[in-house]
Amino acid sequence: MQSHQILKEHIAKTIALTDDQFDYFFSHFKSQSFKKGQVILAAGDTVEREYFVLDGCLKSFYINDDQKMFILQFAMPTWWTSDYNALYSGVKATINIDCVTNAEVLYISNSDREKLCKEIHEVEHFFRWRTNRGYVASQKRLLSFMNNDAKHRYEELLAQYPALYNMVPKHLIAAYLGVSRETLSRLYNP
Amino acid sequence: MQSHQILKEHIAKTIALTDDQFDYFFSHFKSQSFKKGQVILAAGDTVEREYFVLDGCLKSFYINDDQKMFILQFAMPTWWTSDYNALYSGVKATINIDCVTNAEVLYISNSDREKLCKEIHEVEHFFRWRTNRGYVASQKRLLSFMNNDAKHRYEELLAQYPALYNMVPKHLIAAYLGVSRETLSRLYNP
Repeated sequence: MQSHQILKEHIAKTIALTDDQFDYFFSHFKSQSFKKGQVILAAGDTVEREYFVLDGCLKSFYINDDQKMFILQFAMPTWWTSDYNALYSGVKATINIDCVTNAEVLYISNSDREKLCKEIHEVEHFFRWRTNRGYVASQKRLLSFMNNDAKHRYEELLAQYPALYNMVPKHLIAAYLGVSRETLSRLYNP
Repeated sequence: MQSHQILKEHIAKTIALTDDQFDYFFSHFKSQSFKKGQVILAAGDTVEREYFVLDGCLKSFYINDDQKMFILQFAMPTWWTSDYNALYSGVKATINIDCVTNAEVLYISNSDREKLCKEIHEVEHFFRWRTNRGYVASQKRLLSFMNNDAKHRYEELLAQYPALYNMVPKHLIAAYLGVSRETLSRLYNP
């Protein structure tokens, strides 16, 4: 499916734009291809873009003071990702984003998104609900960290992203859950 | 200061409404007073309102399977709070909100907020940015959980909410940081 059509179907779930409005909206996006393992955004970078995944899988992650990696989010097709703290406030990135698989994305600049939101009320509605859903996903992620039942968190993860099990190496699923590789093995192979 | 003025100054930081527009916006809010310790929202409740704090301090918290309490957020004056997952999707609440101190709030229903966002483009802009900031705060909270340096997290918390130190009992600050009361004592009394 063409990127134009994927984005069109994605936003049509939330708002109704005319074809002309959508073409105008779409004209502000650019596409980019990445190879498995390629870095899209590194801690310390200036962040000016947010990414809409067309194909493949990205991960956003944090490296703590003990050099341990924590995965914040896997971004699958039709998910949006960036370091939003850095994107919105202009500070340097604190998280990293790279490619779990080869990936195709669309990206839009912060200033173009703001311009479109101002020009087209429906687009502002779309991005409000996009962020509302992101906020709720982030709260759920926080609650899953607070709930110390790794088996429950593992089942929740697979319910939320059914495609993940085959797409993502097990050591990354363990890093997402905050458990060791060995604990994870016991969970999916009891 | 009157609740009308507090909300007006709060939203004026993000959008410009005429006096008539603001009065119309404000007419959709109701005020409510709560006593210290009073429950505003309990896990299992149906959620139809979001709250804007005028005075005092609320906390939103989660009780895990081991009956351990985790504090998601302290809500101080001009902060918004609710169980947004429940509010937006109609599922039952999974978190609780109660009062750390006596508190005065304004609340608005989910349907009135959506109506106002549709009627006034600027209001939709306000709520998009309100949620953008909430999303970023939630991501920072998640990162603070992933960073195992309790001293750093404690300093971050006091920088984010300077009024908290005198307003909130120490055992609640410990529950927010995910450390024991004894560990917290060592942090603020080294």
